Amino acid sequence: MGKQVCIIGSGNWGSAIAKLAGLNAASNPLFEKNVNMWVYEELVEGRKLTEIINEDHENVKYLPGVKLPENVIAVPELTDAAKDADLFIFVIPHQFIARTVATMKGHVKEGAAAISLIKGINITDSGLGLISDEIRTALGIDVSVLMGANIANEVARDQFCESTVGGFGENAKTFKALFQRPTFRVSISEDPKTVELCGALKNIVACGAGFCDGLGLGDNTKAAIIRLGLMEMMDFCKVFLSEGEVKNQTFMESCGVADLITTCYGGRNRKVSEAFAKTGKSLDELEKEMLNGQKLQGPETARELQGVLTNKKISPERFPLFTSVFKCCYEGAPVPDFLKALENHPAHGN
Amino acid sequence: MGKQVCIIGSGNWGSAIAKLAGLNAASNPLFEKNVNMWVYEELVEGRKLTEIINEDHENVKYLPGVKLPENVIAVPELTDAAKDADLFIFVIPHQFIARTVATMKGHVKEGAAAISLIKGINITDSGLGLISDEIRTALGIDVSVLMGANIANEVARDQFCESTVGGFGENAKTFKALFQRPTFRVSISEDPKTVELCGALKNIVACGAGFCDGLGLGDNTKAAIIRLGLMEMMDFCKVFLSEGEVKNQTFMESCGVADLITTCYGGRNRKVSEAFAKTGKSLDELEKEMLNGQKLQGPETARELQGVLTNKKISPERFPLFTSVFKCCYEGAPVPDFLKALENHPAHGN
Repeated sequence: MGKQVCIIGSGNWGSAIAKLAGLNAASNPLFEKNVNMWVYEELVEGRKLTEIINEDHENVKYLPGVKLPENVIAVPELTDAAKDADLFIFVIPHQFIARTVATMKGHVKEGAAAISLIKGINITDSGLGLISDEIRTALGIDVSVLMGANIANEVARDQFCESTVGGFGENAKTFKALFQRPTFRVSISEDPKTVELCGALKNIVACGAGFCDGLGLGDNTKAAIIRLGLMEMMDFCKVFLSEGEVKNQTFMESCGVADLITTCYGGRNRKVSEAFAKTGKSLDELEKEMLNGQKLQGPETARELQGVLTNKKISPERFPLFTSVFKCCYEGAPVPDFLKALENHPAHGN
Repeated sequence: MGKQVCIIGSGNWGSAIAKLAGLNAASNPLFEKNVNMWVYEELVEGRKLTEIINEDHENVKYLPGVKLPENVIAVPELTDAAKDADLFIFVIPHQFIARTVATMKGHVKEGAAAISLIKGINITDSGLGLISDEIRTALGIDVSVLMGANIANEVARDQFCESTVGGFGENAKTFKALFQRPTFRVSISEDPKTVELCGALKNIVACGAGFCDGLGLGDNTKAAIIRLGLMEMMDFCKVFLSEGEVKNQTFMESCGVADLITTCYGGRNRKVSEAFAKTGKSLDELEKEMLNGQKLQGPETARELQGVLTNKKISPERFPLFTSVFKCCYEGAPVPDFLKALENHPAHGN
């Protein structure tokens, strides 16, 4: 018996990953051929989305133009999709995770394992929390993460890219086997918490990259912002996790520097921040105008981080980029002050 | 008595750095106020370039639109410019270095120090050579290097950026003091050979980034190429230098990841390689059409590296990106094979 795979989520990234997992499950005896995909049911031009996926093998709403393998089966009920699964792929917006795992509780097979593709963090009573911890705590199963420079539409179109599985032992290897394709190359990092934090922190840096673009500055400045952002990501991980736990190599993986670059050149946080610097409109206004219902993550993550720094009694000046993004987004600091804040960055030494 | 500064070179980057050094020399008693700049004499609309610079304080040929400080003095004779100098800034095209240091030999003050801003490498009888070593050997003086994400026109227009001085002790600190400005932030790295090699190797990666653009691929693929290129740069430095000498942190400085990003998004190696992939024209042809007399460095550096690998009996398969750029540029390999070569990259592990 192969392992039964269940994808929790069916948006743009969920559908792209369903293509990879479906193709591999069909050809690798390690996995059951059919892959369940929990699809939040909705009507698209009068037809149920699950029916469209199961009959036409295309998620016309979230990944139009890409055929899904026929063994990817859309299931409208979460508990039905989940009940026999050995491997869960979590790929839903982060604000839905609490409700979703609450529904799944008691319906998960013993010995199952999960991987989270969710990029975000959580504020809990004890400070900052990882999404993977939330899943782990709720379901009592091992949870890996998958992060990297993986814009969904490009992945779905088989454009070469890399990704990082953060996890340990057999489960990490199994997930690598589930995702790896000739054009989707997976490395394993045994530093999953750092891998996961990279996915959240990069969005703050992307706001800085957007400010740079909005101010009409060039490639030098953007490269400096990306690099200083990377330095702050490294330092913050060492503050939030324990220092010995964080491996510098992790920042050199796809989840680190590569995803950061992609996000700072493409990506919605960059785009809206550019408009913020240029127009002076509020972030709320721009989000409504530009993102078609999607949410910005960078400013919110920057705000959450300030709380963590306060809790840990760490000076915000240790993180001038993160702090200045927060001040520009929430405290009315003029965007050009953002660059002023970087001039005496601790990374420059004496 | 302050230290007398002499800039050897007056092109685009030389003129931009003259602005920074001139401003700092005028205000910091560590330096003599007047800064000599050796200018290869030429006529611009009937006037000598040295006269234009000394009267109008603008290098109208190589950095038009930017005023140079009045204390930057253009000197047409190399030995005149050099004779009392304590600090040399070398910023000439790398093919002129041998001739230039030969002319200077015997005209250099004892105890002088130099910094090289030249990005390139040298093939010698013993394999690959560093430009800084060539200067050091010829003149018998200490040589630091300055590398970073420093597109000259942006630096000259005071757009925020960072740079890396590779060097040791007082000389490195003196050069930092000479260059650092509110918008030009300098870090010192005590790993100067790696700093210098980064400046040469990044151009090979930029060819790969250009291929990616020419093939119509997106941000995921480009980020993967940049990251794998960075991995090969790190590994190559460990092959060429001794392993213990190379610090991983150096690749996180402006000379490493930041300059690489800038070069892979802007930069002439990227641009011509994109056209190479799209048009099928030869590199020679494209160089003539697109570069207005400037030379490509990436393909040549890739070719030179193959020789070094052969000399050291190292399999070219350890460097799939560097090797594939070489094969596409010189051996007629089809450009799409470049991505094939990356699929089983050693950086992906097992």
